[in-house]
Amino acid sequence: MSKKILKEFGLRIKELRQERGLTQEQFATKCGLHKNYIGMIERGERNPSLINIEIIAKGLEISISKLMKF
Amino acid sequence: MSKKILKEFGLRIKELRQERGLTQEQFATKCGLHKNYIGMIERGERNPSLINIEIIAKGLEISISKLMKF
Repeated sequence: MSKKILKEFGLRIKELRQERGLTQEQFATKCGLHKNYIGMIERGERNPSLINIEIIAKGLEISISKLMKF
Repeated sequence: MSKKILKEFGLRIKELRQERGLTQEQFATKCGLHKNYIGMIERGERNPSLINIEIIAKGLEISISKLMKF
């Protein structure tokens, strides 16, 4: 099982979150997710489900397709 | 928790699989996943993880970003 995709996804989230000037905590609140979960996602330590990917995309105000361009 | 995304994802997989002339069983074998799992995904009954989304995209020979255009 390759975890490369989880690292790539995490870096993409971090990049887009920072572009929006949000801390992990602010972003977590915006998404309605826990800040620890966002931290783990950004470090590639979680394997998010499609439903959570959609929640994160909405929090970043981007389509899932654009979010997945990495 | 909206399950609309799971239905949309399932229909997208089914459409792309059929375009490639593959049965659920042939596609499952190609992906190394169980045919029952593919059936559940196509019906929107499962919430796939990012790692499984990547496996499905590889099986369809498409980028995750293009797969997610629905």
